[in-house]
Amino acid sequence: MKNIKAISLGLLPLLSGMAMGQNVQKQPNLVVIFCDDLGYGDIGCFGNPTIKTPNIDRMASEGMKLTQFYVGAAVSTPSRSALLTGRLPVRNGMYGERNHVLFPDSKAGLGQDEITMAKVLKENGYATACVGKWHLGAFSPYLPTDHGFDSYFGIPYSNDMGTGRMGRAQNYPPTPLLENNLRIESNPDQGEITRRYTEKAVGFIKDQKAGKPFFLYFAHTFPHVPLYTNDRFRGTSKRGLYGDVVEEIDWSVGLVLKTLEECGLDENTLVIFTSDNGPWLTQKENGGTAGSLRDGKGTWWEGGFRVPAIARMPGKIPASLSSEIMTSMDIMPTFLALAGIALPKGVALDGVDQRGLLFERQASARDEVFYWWGSDLMAVRKGAWKLYFKTIYDMYLPSMKIVDCEVPELYNLETDISERFNKSAAQPQIVAQLVEVANRHKQAMVIKAPVCDLREEFKQ
Amino acid sequence: MKNIKAISLGLLPLLSGMAMGQNVQKQPNLVVIFCDDLGYGDIGCFGNPTIKTPNIDRMASEGMKLTQFYVGAAVSTPSRSALLTGRLPVRNGMYGERNHVLFPDSKAGLGQDEITMAKVLKENGYATACVGKWHLGAFSPYLPTDHGFDSYFGIPYSNDMGTGRMGRAQNYPPTPLLENNLRIESNPDQGEITRRYTEKAVGFIKDQKAGKPFFLYFAHTFPHVPLYTNDRFRGTSKRGLYGDVVEEIDWSVGLVLKTLEECGLDENTLVIFTSDNGPWLTQKENGGTAGSLRDGKGTWWEGGFRVPAIARMPGKIPASLSSEIMTSMDIMPTFLALAGIALPKGVALDGVDQRGLLFERQASARDEVFYWWGSDLMAVRKGAWKLYFKTIYDMYLPSMKIVDCEVPELYNLETDISERFNKSAAQPQIVAQLVEVANRHKQAMVIKAPVCDLREEFKQ
Repeated sequence: MKNIKAISLGLLPLLSGMAMGQNVQKQPNLVVIFCDDLGYGDIGCFGNPTIKTPNIDRMASEGMKLTQFYVGAAVSTPSRSALLTGRLPVRNGMYGERNHVLFPDSKAGLGQDEITMAKVLKENGYATACVGKWHLGAFSPYLPTDHGFDSYFGIPYSNDMGTGRMGRAQNYPPTPLLENNLRIESNPDQGEITRRYTEKAVGFIKDQKAGKPFFLYFAHTFPHVPLYTNDRFRGTSKRGLYGDVVEEIDWSVGLVLKTLEECGLDENTLVIFTSDNGPWLTQKENGGTAGSLRDGKGTWWEGGFRVPAIARMPGKIPASLSSEIMTSMDIMPTFLALAGIALPKGVALDGVDQRGLLFERQASARDEVFYWWGSDLMAVRKGAWKLYFKTIYDMYLPSMKIVDCEVPELYNLETDISERFNKSAAQPQIVAQLVEVANRHKQAMVIKAPVCDLREEFKQ
Repeated sequence: MKNIKAISLGLLPLLSGMAMGQNVQKQPNLVVIFCDDLGYGDIGCFGNPTIKTPNIDRMASEGMKLTQFYVGAAVSTPSRSALLTGRLPVRNGMYGERNHVLFPDSKAGLGQDEITMAKVLKENGYATACVGKWHLGAFSPYLPTDHGFDSYFGIPYSNDMGTGRMGRAQNYPPTPLLENNLRIESNPDQGEITRRYTEKAVGFIKDQKAGKPFFLYFAHTFPHVPLYTNDRFRGTSKRGLYGDVVEEIDWSVGLVLKTLEECGLDENTLVIFTSDNGPWLTQKENGGTAGSLRDGKGTWWEGGFRVPAIARMPGKIPASLSSEIMTSMDIMPTFLALAGIALPKGVALDGVDQRGLLFERQASARDEVFYWWGSDLMAVRKGAWKLYFKTIYDMYLPSMKIVDCEVPELYNLETDISERFNKSAAQPQIVAQLVEVANRHKQAMVIKAPVCDLREEFKQ
């Protein structure tokens, strides 16, 4: 990986002049809007034909649309841990060999030895709020309020993990709705959840109007299945219920942006919109689409790891399309740098500071991406090239069959955007280079024990 | 098909006030920019990750991005005939049973009994110009200047049809470059062709500044293979040569729009940008992508017939995304209605007037699409549903194998955008309805003899 680029001196006056007319030293507000299972091709500005997302599209036209943005894992729990810690799941422990996410009967969550960006920001004077899906532990000391968030409101894991939902036979408790660390409802009406989340998020922003800088982590429960939407959105989309649900999220994004504008905060607020992983293709019409990318959620093809992403900060981030590589793990170091806060000491981060990319039209501070599944490094990207060590025989089988590549498969992700043409035979030097990158990365990796395998059913 | 909708009275003052400060009765200028083999997913605003098309994206953000826009055929010659005559190829004769397009040894072209929109516009006072690929006949009386265009400049057929190109063994003449009806060059440097076309197009617009209303049909030679681009664009795109070529077309679009603006014409000029058919997938990295649509050029899956499309007329067409159904054949009746010119008498048109859709946020004037291949009706769409009577066994075979469906296959194009889930067993009533639509359409069709089969090699 390239070293973190030195940020040119030009950025500092830019950022210090952000809140003109207010305190010119005011730290920026930071917002992440994180969807669940929203695919690369599920919004208008990423090419969807029948889902209308005018607010997200406007966000893209006013900000930077990032077409090569990656998450840390192709499923929920590890992806969320990567976002919040800036570290790969294999490093922070939020993965499993048999269970790739946490379940209601999981016996642990994100450890207190892990440092989230919320914790660092809070310790440095930020107001912090988490609204929505958490999925890093459903009880203390694993809750958002145990990890640096002043407040939490949401369903703490996936919305299909309640009693009897989706044909599951497990003796799961009813779906909980938490306020901070308290269960305030069981089986909340999921058709009202996006609206209620949005009201909480907007209320938090309004409360901060004249106060501390803030960090809002707004993690939607949807479009994960089972799909529910408010009556106002039912039947609005040609795409069916999936589209209705995404269009309600679009409404929510619009309201967040409008609130920032009305509070006079939008030019001092960096908002990033993205998704936790690719579309859940096996859900058929209740799942999304990865557009021109291959495959989806739960795979290390691009459709699993690459997600739509937009970064907006009017007047600071140029309205543009960027095909530079960025990852969700880069958000933490970028946010801390913007806020003038040091990175946590002694912590190995996988994210890098991307202020140069976002604010100064520089090249990305990284040219490598690592595709882990459990504690297996399945593929590696460097520059345009991606090398697979293992692939998937048929993701539509009831149980995914993983296949060792006899010869690693090599794809050029920039010219062959759908990963159709294996070039390993033609490019032995690039194969060798990527094998070396993978080996170096694996040798340097300090692997943590897999938390997601600690479940009642396994008696561990 | 729905009847053509009555255009509300609101439109007339809108249109008559178009050229404020000039002659308020001035008819609008009309421009079609037509790419060759550009796929649904090949430009930024339709979701391409590595091809940068800021000018086309700007055109979309200022105009209407049409996500369900169809051409009349999935290959060049018939698609172009459908655009220019407003009639399906099976009706105008520009198709074949063995040859789906014209070749350099074809013995005929678009008949003089066919009436192009250029001819009608010219007869009604418009200045008309054709720049670029024609592919409706390479000699008189089949040339653009025989079909209503005051002038022509371009390579008259596909750019892979010259001597020795693409491994072809046929005794084709060197690739011609025509000016009106004269060959002015043989084997022109194709790396300069997009630039030269653009200069001709821009020159034509400038010449019309204070004169007659005009119709410009600007049909790019690219991104059809073999790919060539100007030195200024070589290596500019991460997508490789294909991306460089599309980025040069994007430059060209930007220059056309800029010229209209500089001439004070843009608010009185309707510009439509689209493609003749889907991406040529068998060309691998030298072909494009259909994004989330299934398959590509030469097939009647959506990737073959549905193309990116944008309509722009600042102040008249609302900046918006429309998923209403429109086809290239609708352009002729829409253009003529805008210009206040009657449709040709006694001619059966397949296109319908779409002023309501483009200018007044109305529903489309059509809800049906017919997918012909040669003289076979392969599939039909009505509303969200598409029914296949024949499908393709494997388009990557050297010779495409067409398969009769034992039971027609039914797809919902709006909820199942990639045509993955055949619903014919679950929806027998919809199957029956679409069979009826197809039968009615076929029974009413007056089929013309196939011109594209008239080649030297067949001694016809």
